[in-house]
Amino acid sequence: MAFYALIMAGGTGTRLWPASRRDRPKQSLRLIGNRTMFEHAIDRIAPVFQPEQILVVAGSEHTSDLSDQAPEVPAQNFIIEPMGRGTAPAIGLGAIHLRRRDPDAIMAVLTADHFIADIERFRAVLQAAAEVARDGHLVTLGIEPTSPSTGYGYIQQGEGLDQADGFDVYNVERFAEKPDEETAVRMVESGDYTWNSGMFVWRVDRIMEEFERQMPDFYIQLAEVEGVLGTHGYQPTLQRIWPRVDKQAIDYGVMEGARNVAVIPVDIGWSDVGSWGSLAELLARMGNRDEQGNVVVGEHVVIDTENSMVFGDDRLIATIGLDSVVIVDAGDAVLVCPMDREQEVRDLVHRLEREGKKKYL
Amino acid sequence: MAFYALIMAGGTGTRLWPASRRDRPKQSLRLIGNRTMFEHAIDRIAPVFQPEQILVVAGSEHTSDLSDQAPEVPAQNFIIEPMGRGTAPAIGLGAIHLRRRDPDAIMAVLTADHFIADIERFRAVLQAAAEVARDGHLVTLGIEPTSPSTGYGYIQQGEGLDQADGFDVYNVERFAEKPDEETAVRMVESGDYTWNSGMFVWRVDRIMEEFERQMPDFYIQLAEVEGVLGTHGYQPTLQRIWPRVDKQAIDYGVMEGARNVAVIPVDIGWSDVGSWGSLAELLARMGNRDEQGNVVVGEHVVIDTENSMVFGDDRLIATIGLDSVVIVDAGDAVLVCPMDREQEVRDLVHRLEREGKKKYL
Repeated sequence: MAFYALIMAGGTGTRLWPASRRDRPKQSLRLIGNRTMFEHAIDRIAPVFQPEQILVVAGSEHTSDLSDQAPEVPAQNFIIEPMGRGTAPAIGLGAIHLRRRDPDAIMAVLTADHFIADIERFRAVLQAAAEVARDGHLVTLGIEPTSPSTGYGYIQQGEGLDQADGFDVYNVERFAEKPDEETAVRMVESGDYTWNSGMFVWRVDRIMEEFERQMPDFYIQLAEVEGVLGTHGYQPTLQRIWPRVDKQAIDYGVMEGARNVAVIPVDIGWSDVGSWGSLAELLARMGNRDEQGNVVVGEHVVIDTENSMVFGDDRLIATIGLDSVVIVDAGDAVLVCPMDREQEVRDLVHRLEREGKKKYL
Repeated sequence: MAFYALIMAGGTGTRLWPASRRDRPKQSLRLIGNRTMFEHAIDRIAPVFQPEQILVVAGSEHTSDLSDQAPEVPAQNFIIEPMGRGTAPAIGLGAIHLRRRDPDAIMAVLTADHFIADIERFRAVLQAAAEVARDGHLVTLGIEPTSPSTGYGYIQQGEGLDQADGFDVYNVERFAEKPDEETAVRMVESGDYTWNSGMFVWRVDRIMEEFERQMPDFYIQLAEVEGVLGTHGYQPTLQRIWPRVDKQAIDYGVMEGARNVAVIPVDIGWSDVGSWGSLAELLARMGNRDEQGNVVVGEHVVIDTENSMVFGDDRLIATIGLDSVVIVDAGDAVLVCPMDREQEVRDLVHRLEREGKKKYL
């Protein structure tokens, strides 16, 4: 059974505005070093998958840019979604492409815009997860929590299964939605919970079986697209069907009710790089924090400023007397925001949408 | 006796960085409406002085730009200082040019980078001051204090002289340097003190007499330049002499020890626009403050931000959860600083100088 990667490269990373924009989404940003998030995602799996075995699902407006970033991946491996419908449809679309190519395929669903520091261990767990998936398990990669975060969903592990390549494997007891702080503390202290990373490994026939059982309407839509795969009818059919597909996340649509779900808890230095605070933490962990606790990208001149995140482009950012503030200078916009309110960047972007300020989106 | 204006247009306005730069000094900035500070300075005196009666002292690097802003002022009325030596030498240089043109001239020393809201009253007091100067008084315009500012020098008034055109005129008791807060409160409460605006009116022969008496070394240097005025020897002589001239402010060098000094207290809506906080106060007074207490120039999108100053150019500035912060986006630099530390912008600029970051100066 051959092993394939399906990289989910939709989404824009709203909370990383003003760096992230509609036409310059998070996966194309150079947030960490000189490689884009998508380039990091390709780099770290290169030894595990041949370029021909890497598929990418992305929106039509981003495909060409992403293809430029990974020229070794064949152009036909970029699967274009007419519009984003959530992770379940994106995975379904990838799955029918893969099933047609190899009905026995094992597929790893991976993300284009997360960061993983311990690449070696990540590669190892992918191989281990493929072993576990071989017998029909839907395998999730659970991130061992480093804090009681309220920003992630959690996976509760049940009884242990066998080890695979030295990794412990557990049945999944349940998937828990993003918790409140009290619940998060309790879950993390119990030792039974890991963060849901959104990375999965399974046989393509098993995930199709779950779509059929749990999302039957979507499965029928998907089957119609699958029926014309490789013909001139594919594009028109996809364009016709996709707007009618219900939005659904794979967690709620499939994983919570699926059979034979396993989790492998891992410590791979994972970060979703979901917001400026999250990026600041990651860069700090990688040693990019100065003695005043500032994380700075770009040119910064500073008087008495501490614990702040300064993310610049080619302009100088000067600060006096700030503590725990995020400043981002990107393109035609500047953001200034206290670190503890960085989640509200999303609201700001929605406001720009409401006010019709399209040039800044 | 004809009445002339000498506009002092040296200086760069360091505390207004990053808007102010060496090659784009404060007097050339559009801080208030669509006119530069220098254009405002020319506009408000236009009905009082013919363009031929307006002289401007400026540094060589700024003269051409200033001349473009006031094309009606004859080019030869722009007097170039090889380098800034403080206000006393600048006034001295202007004075010899004026004395040559009209030994009986009355001159008003005015500023190029301050703002005056009540232009009509300002014009009236200039005329009144010229009357008082006619008999030999050195007249200073004292600004009636609106707060116990520690940022200005103060003038203590003594016994009253006659009224002139409806303005009260006083002998000057003394000039006081920038006070500490306690002293400032006491001075303002006494009612005897006004702010030293740096605007003066006097007969040119009287100020030359004071230079001769109080700054005899400088007077000799000045006389040497005056001796070659209008000849080919002027530029080389000025270039040779000026580097040796001691730096001196007119207040310390002349006014404190001068004879027959008068002050006219005025309320003309004056602001030195010396810093971002000062500009914010001025713009707020002029009605440019929103319901959250923010003063905004340029495009701003905001969540829960109050009492802040946002001064943008052609880019969007977005803020979340800020209170009393100054944000300035100008050219290739961005400044973020709490309102109560805006005086430290000067330190920031000195730091850029020390670190050799010339492109931002």
